[in-house]
Amino acid sequence: MSFGTPQRGRRNLARRSPTPGANPNSAKGGFWLYGLHAARAALANPRRIIRRAVMTERAQTELGGSLARLREDGLTVASPDAVSRLLPPGAVHQGVALLCEPLLPLDLKDAMQAAAAGPRLVVVLDQITDPHNEGAILRSAAAFGVAAVVVQDRHAPPESGALAKAASGGLDLVPRITAVNIARALEELGRLGFYRIALAADGEAALRDAAPPGDVAIVLGAEGAGLRRLVRERCDASAFIPMGGAMESLNVSNAAAIAFYELRRGAEKA
Amino acid sequence: MSFGTPQRGRRNLARRSPTPGANPNSAKGGFWLYGLHAARAALANPRRIIRRAVMTERAQTELGGSLARLREDGLTVASPDAVSRLLPPGAVHQGVALLCEPLLPLDLKDAMQAAAAGPRLVVVLDQITDPHNEGAILRSAAAFGVAAVVVQDRHAPPESGALAKAASGGLDLVPRITAVNIARALEELGRLGFYRIALAADGEAALRDAAPPGDVAIVLGAEGAGLRRLVRERCDASAFIPMGGAMESLNVSNAAAIAFYELRRGAEKA
Repeated sequence: MSFGTPQRGRRNLARRSPTPGANPNSAKGGFWLYGLHAARAALANPRRIIRRAVMTERAQTELGGSLARLREDGLTVASPDAVSRLLPPGAVHQGVALLCEPLLPLDLKDAMQAAAAGPRLVVVLDQITDPHNEGAILRSAAAFGVAAVVVQDRHAPPESGALAKAASGGLDLVPRITAVNIARALEELGRLGFYRIALAADGEAALRDAAPPGDVAIVLGAEGAGLRRLVRERCDASAFIPMGGAMESLNVSNAAAIAFYELRRGAEKA
Repeated sequence: MSFGTPQRGRRNLARRSPTPGANPNSAKGGFWLYGLHAARAALANPRRIIRRAVMTERAQTELGGSLARLREDGLTVASPDAVSRLLPPGAVHQGVALLCEPLLPLDLKDAMQAAAAGPRLVVVLDQITDPHNEGAILRSAAAFGVAAVVVQDRHAPPESGALAKAASGGLDLVPRITAVNIARALEELGRLGFYRIALAADGEAALRDAAPPGDVAIVLGAEGAGLRRLVRERCDASAFIPMGGAMESLNVSNAAAIAFYELRRGAEKA
């Protein structure tokens, strides 16, 4: 099966000039995911339900065999402009948009049992609501082999195109656990044997000295607000990132990336 | 001098309901900088020319003494909505907007002579054009005491509110050198005694093993395109960030943050 040319029987949006809203492209109950990295990861994720795919011939070629899972009538070849019209203004879609359902909830314990062997690193995000920040964290989590990202159900961005794009595949690569209550999720991580470290400017020790061998959960709060007291109290230790410059604060996704780097290095040594 | 209440003689936009465009708020030749951290750093930067300031009473209180440098007729107290109307939709301004001129060009050699003693770290950005990415890099650069950020004149974002906001003060805290030619800037850094390291996924060594004691320049390219060959050839070594996850690539600002963290740690040990 070749993906180099439009398939017979597939509708060609480039010729049909669809009017968004009055057609099967409606995102009701789902969301439009876009960008090549995000789309490739979604297509490779057996847990991801994809209702429709709209893409250029070029994107179809790029994505190649991973499109085999789509139903024939679920793929539409379209012009770049037709893809743009499905998405928020300015979305950098690289020729592909997938109408996806949000993933079904994952259980923390199940996700941990499914994780790779060796010391596991989990990141817990306390009310980080910006999709670009969480997306960048998911991306770094995928890069560093983080076993799960735990977020709070009602204080995290919903799955969206912006979140998936910033995650550049991470949304479909890293188990994302939506917990009702972060403090309780930390209690469960404790029972599972994780050493829980709160990252905070006023932490007790430098991060490099804070982590024992074994499984670690690193807990990050929102910029400005920081970690809530009840969340911090559920941690075994607190740690800071030594900086020494003129400003005390890093963007939260940059702080997360440094934490993953430091803690995965610790895991290598262990 | 109290900043808790509007000053007599200052125009109150909240009552005047200005129509943007037809008034002295025009940004012609300058740009509207917004957000408390960005504004505080701009006000503290003697090199920054500020033509007008529009802010809420609350922001006026927050910024306090740093407003003393403004001419009395240069500060307007306004409602949050009136501040919003000066800015792009959705700009998170925290009640303050400053109409600024871009900074005058800085010379690399001068900036290096003005840098603090001790091993210096400089970052060179090869055609990173996204203001949010460069802004986040400026922010981390300020946090880690990076001595300068070198960008290419025609392939870097212009100074803007979005750049300054993402930099959260870093735009006015870290010397930003706009070079006509990055390869030539690297040659000059070499003459100044900097060891130049290209950060690349296929680098020769892990970053932690790549930097000798002394002054270091770390060179980052755009995501996707990476470093241009001519730029990479001007470096003394290439290095990668060890990751070991399912994805090979980090967001460029996250890669920069990790590099600063690793290289400043090296400087501490030296």
